[in-house]
Amino acid sequence: MTTDTARAFLSDNAAPVHPEVWEAMRAADASDSPYDGDAISQRLDEAFGALFGREVAVLWVATGTAANCLALAAMVPPHGAVVCHEEAHIEMDEGGAPGFFLHGAKLLLARGDSAKLTPDAIRAVVDPIRDDVHQVQPHAISITQASEYGCCYRADELAAISALAREKGLGLHMDGARFANAAAFLSDLGAGASTAAQAAAGDVDALSFGCVKNGGMSAEAIVFFDPTLADVARYRRKRAGHLQSKGRFLAAQLLAMVEGDLWLANGRAANAAAGEVARACADRLMQPVEANEVFVRLSPQEREVLRDQGFAFYDWGADAARFVTAWNTREDDARALATAIAGL
Amino acid sequence: MTTDTARAFLSDNAAPVHPEVWEAMRAADASDSPYDGDAISQRLDEAFGALFGREVAVLWVATGTAANCLALAAMVPPHGAVVCHEEAHIEMDEGGAPGFFLHGAKLLLARGDSAKLTPDAIRAVVDPIRDDVHQVQPHAISITQASEYGCCYRADELAAISALAREKGLGLHMDGARFANAAAFLSDLGAGASTAAQAAAGDVDALSFGCVKNGGMSAEAIVFFDPTLADVARYRRKRAGHLQSKGRFLAAQLLAMVEGDLWLANGRAANAAAGEVARACADRLMQPVEANEVFVRLSPQEREVLRDQGFAFYDWGADAARFVTAWNTREDDARALATAIAGL
Amino acid sequence: MTTDTARAFLSDNAAPVHPEVWEAMRAADASDSPYDGDAISQRLDEAFGALFGREVAVLWVATGTAANCLALAAMVPPHGAVVCHEEAHIEMDEGGAPGFFLHGAKLLLARGDSAKLTPDAIRAVVDPIRDDVHQVQPHAISITQASEYGCCYRADELAAISALAREKGLGLHMDGARFANAAAFLSDLGAGASTAAQAAAGDVDALSFGCVKNGGMSAEAIVFFDPTLADVARYRRKRAGHLQSKGRFLAAQLLAMVEGDLWLANGRAANAAAGEVARACADRLMQPVEANEVFVRLSPQEREVLRDQGFAFYDWGADAARFVTAWNTREDDARALATAIAGL
Amino acid sequence: MTTDTARAFLSDNAAPVHPEVWEAMRAADASDSPYDGDAISQRLDEAFGALFGREVAVLWVATGTAANCLALAAMVPPHGAVVCHEEAHIEMDEGGAPGFFLHGAKLLLARGDSAKLTPDAIRAVVDPIRDDVHQVQPHAISITQASEYGCCYRADELAAISALAREKGLGLHMDGARFANAAAFLSDLGAGASTAAQAAAGDVDALSFGCVKNGGMSAEAIVFFDPTLADVARYRRKRAGHLQSKGRFLAAQLLAMVEGDLWLANGRAANAAAGEVARACADRLMQPVEANEVFVRLSPQEREVLRDQGFAFYDWGADAARFVTAWNTREDDARALATAIAGL
Repeated sequence: MTTDTARAFLSDNAAPVHPEVWEAMRAADASDSPYDGDAISQRLDEAFGALFGREVAVLWVATGTAANCLALAAMVPPHGAVVCHEEAHIEMDEGGAPGFFLHGAKLLLARGDSAKLTPDAIRAVVDPIRDDVHQVQPHAISITQASEYGCCYRADELAAISALAREKGLGLHMDGARFANAAAFLSDLGAGASTAAQAAAGDVDALSFGCVKNGGMSAEAIVFFDPTLADVARYRRKRAGHLQSKGRFLAAQLLAMVEGDLWLANGRAANAAAGEVARACADRLMQPVEANEVFVRLSPQEREVLRDQGFAFYDWGADAARFVTAWNTREDDARALATAIAGL
Repeated sequence: MTTDTARAFLSDNAAPVHPEVWEAMRAADASDSPYDGDAISQRLDEAFGALFGREVAVLWVATGTAANCLALAAMVPPHGAVVCHEEAHIEMDEGGAPGFFLHGAKLLLARGDSAKLTPDAIRAVVDPIRDDVHQVQPHAISITQASEYGCCYRADELAAISALAREKGLGLHMDGARFANAAAFLSDLGAGASTAAQAAAGDVDALSFGCVKNGGMSAEAIVFFDPTLADVARYRRKRAGHLQSKGRFLAAQLLAMVEGDLWLANGRAANAAAGEVARACADRLMQPVEANEVFVRLSPQEREVLRDQGFAFYDWGADAARFVTAWNTREDDARALATAIAGL
Repeated sequence: MTTDTARAFLSDNAAPVHPEVWEAMRAADASDSPYDGDAISQRLDEAFGALFGREVAVLWVATGTAANCLALAAMVPPHGAVVCHEEAHIEMDEGGAPGFFLHGAKLLLARGDSAKLTPDAIRAVVDPIRDDVHQVQPHAISITQASEYGCCYRADELAAISALAREKGLGLHMDGARFANAAAFLSDLGAGASTAAQAAAGDVDALSFGCVKNGGMSAEAIVFFDPTLADVARYRRKRAGHLQSKGRFLAAQLLAMVEGDLWLANGRAANAAAGEVARACADRLMQPVEANEVFVRLSPQEREVLRDQGFAFYDWGADAARFVTAWNTREDDARALATAIAGL
Repeated sequence: MTTDTARAFLSDNAAPVHPEVWEAMRAADASDSPYDGDAISQRLDEAFGALFGREVAVLWVATGTAANCLALAAMVPPHGAVVCHEEAHIEMDEGGAPGFFLHGAKLLLARGDSAKLTPDAIRAVVDPIRDDVHQVQPHAISITQASEYGCCYRADELAAISALAREKGLGLHMDGARFANAAAFLSDLGAGASTAAQAAAGDVDALSFGCVKNGGMSAEAIVFFDPTLADVARYRRKRAGHLQSKGRFLAAQLLAMVEGDLWLANGRAANAAAGEVARACADRLMQPVEANEVFVRLSPQEREVLRDQGFAFYDWGADAARFVTAWNTREDDARALATAIAGL
């Protein structure tokens, strides 16, 4: 299905590749060492270390699923479990990948508004587990920034979850498929990339830093704030067939994003477009719009009207729709959608 | 380590991306459906079907390791085994990926000259296995075309192995990381792509059709000649984090290769360069040169002399070296190496 | 902790071994073939076939966890899922064994009164699953007879679930850790063992036939009504370290149970004792008492009073207790407990 | 196949249960706590600690396969490997159980006379492995005492292997399916059980202490000399369905063996019978007889003669046979076999 891109609000996951990313990839073509031994891959730790203001170990992989699962596999033994939201991507949309990468470890499902976890929600899952061999013990928590509903964890929320993780001896992972959108939302427009990144990441042990939904082609970064985890993940990445021999092209995508502030600028652009839409239908919103997703109550008839006008989007249950913007969503198109919804 | 590409014979796995591949990728940028629902991915079955002259189901993945292991996982249950050469890539160089993707299934190692299997070598492994639950039962055979030593299976050799596989009820997989080089060797210069492909593939159930070592960037095709295997592999690909949302860029690489005969032309170019080198040192060759790898007996001193002249290559044990050519190896450079070796 | 067995209502899982089981085990001592090649193991298929009135393939294993998971592993690929009740033993109390034996396959949790599933409850879980690779697809349903709350599926309930399983193409497994108690409840006192067994089993594909909680020592039977499943399970049993070399002692336990009607008599005895208790506290019951478990609303103070009188049992949350009877619970002891509860 | 036990030299794995083991099991019947919370299981650490003269953590399991694999799973991550002899039980006869329990970790096969490893043999496997993610890294060594050919590691041989393990940072596991036979061989007839046990165990991290082949019914002990490994193994045992609810009957078997010196006496008895046979055919022996297995060169015709006389045993390839004695092999029967072979 080829869609009219001007009016496509289906997802950010198939958006075009940003020109600067293309340029960086072309520059990476010059023959070099294979795998992650090339000069570009070797710059990742430093570039992300500068962004987050502390030492990190960074691995590229091609997909968010691989990033999430390799990060968690470094924290959780096969007989352990991960606490996540019942609507988290790892639970709902990764085809059972956590079960594969973690060798049968379990996902323990917590609830929470806007697909966000809270310490109480985590405790409600973790506390009833008897500390014996009959029940699977939690070893990590995974949160999503921005969440599946496009909502963001604030600094104090992140701190409270980190504190709980430390108290319980659990690892803490963040699925940042839309990390840039969260960072854009959580920081002032004038804030630098480093400030924004740190506000959005809080104090997690590992972050799946999204790039594909944000103007990249095929690269995500696993940022390990605990480098010992990276040592395990390197073996697991190869073992999962995710160590590409021309990995320089993945590294190049990531550096194009984070050596400047392209990642943040793209996140801001997508958020701005979503905000444009959201403002037109504040009374129909199902969730606060804090990133680049807009969940709107719309009857089947209303959705048909919009589709007749050329807008493409997914239904969200029987009486709603999801609109997703991307780095390349034009102001005009967002405004056209806003106007169309307002006119229903 | 950045090497002087003009004189680099380290491996084909980090060679530049072919201009036509770049072009196809750029053309794929226009926003489209995610995963493999896009128009380009949808053309794969037809394109490869035309190449192989029969119905196939094709999945793209980013690496040869993923291709091999997903193909085998569709054939072999966790309690089963795969017969392969003791020097096969799946045994030696994939970081245990078969154990991961096949959930602990076993590799049964056979021997054979030039890293090739023969029916006798396979029988020597399979026949002593008692048909009881105490021993792991074989479910598939995996062969490599061209082999780890750059040697090719002829039509009659393939037919004999297929026949044995059928007799024993085993699946048959071909690791074609360097399939193009084998197809180039096995066919006349005037032969068409389809003829060459069919000669090299024989009658296997699944083929890992290499692209990355042959001028691609990040795409390999799993070609299933038994489409029911593909149905399983689709779930497994997602579950392994190998279903890229912008999969159109992988599909585009593959189509650039096989909708014309670029794949075969690239294979021929690499083989020609290897032949140039081989002719200069026929008395030093450890293996027949039938693809793009040249294994040459060279003392440490001789290797030092070559490196001082700027040639880059890997040692192969204590008294030999491996030279690998690629689609972009220039005739001049191959001749320079040939001359240098001849002059030792 | 050694308890006063006369007043122990903790669980049936540590009850003494029935004298007839002991006798059968002693008789099995005479040296014989190892694994399941012995004459006793060889009688299992016939004995259970007679009980269920159709051809079956039977494997012994030492634990209910192994029985459940090996049965399911024969039905469900690693990328699949099993629908079960959210309080099922496989979900709550098996230490993640399904994740291990099924290689990361998922449990999909359904709700239902008395820890029983209904077609509607199953549909509520299964129907929203999109038929694509992003979501884990169900391959089997597992129900528990009697359920975790000691409640039994009637013939029509079983038929409805079977019909749904067939409609959806799902395998159907029954965890019968307390199958004997269910069979006792579901059949008249005068009913023969075969009638009782068939009423309780319905039309499932595989049954974990419990023996340990019913007077056995260390044997459970996996009864495969589809013999092709058994062929896979045999390999998986060995691979899981569950093929005991002196398996004749497990087979002997099972034959002692099912070649006569000891299994059913033991189930009836335990049920009768539970009934005795239940009649004394009908107004306090949290669940219908249909097997050998009695869930009773009791305040902490009331529980303390009972414990002071020497009764042993587990708390069930803050305001209740669980009493479990076994084949050896004496009428006097059940009556004493009944009297004590009535006197609170 | 029921055999004449008086003349059965097939295997020790189906021998009768020793009367003292039966007695201990009967004594364990009195109702008690489930799993390993019972008073008998709780004595295991102390009993084995006394035997080995140091702190240990001990888990019972039903089979040697489970013991070996749970021990190794506590030492080796899924992406790692175990070095073992190419004829080790874990490689040849456990139906792929290591691949299952270790989640796809690899067995690296070393060679050595009499199915024993040496430091050189281990180095020959380990040293060529490049320390990179492409090759599976060794994490443990597993040796078998007595070996698959009934041969024993001496103190200095054990010390050399331990030293190598420490040097390489590898765990060290001992498969002691016939540990008693090794201990009997390695110690003087007058030596106490503790002296014998320590001589045979050397300085390993975990020992699968066999009981089933030595007069037990269904219990093996995993003896962890590093208690932190036991903490992992406890979860893995449950997860593998090996935590029996009436575990007291397994613990009772083990205590019957090791609280006195029954285990050693049984080992000595079996060894004595094997010695009787071996003396009669010194010129036909394929391996030194150091335990309870006798490998004898015998033509097909000679084997037929013996079988016609009522002796039962397995062929060992085309021109040999394996005779195994057990704790219950009578002197007369061993002598009869010896005479029969001598008379060929």
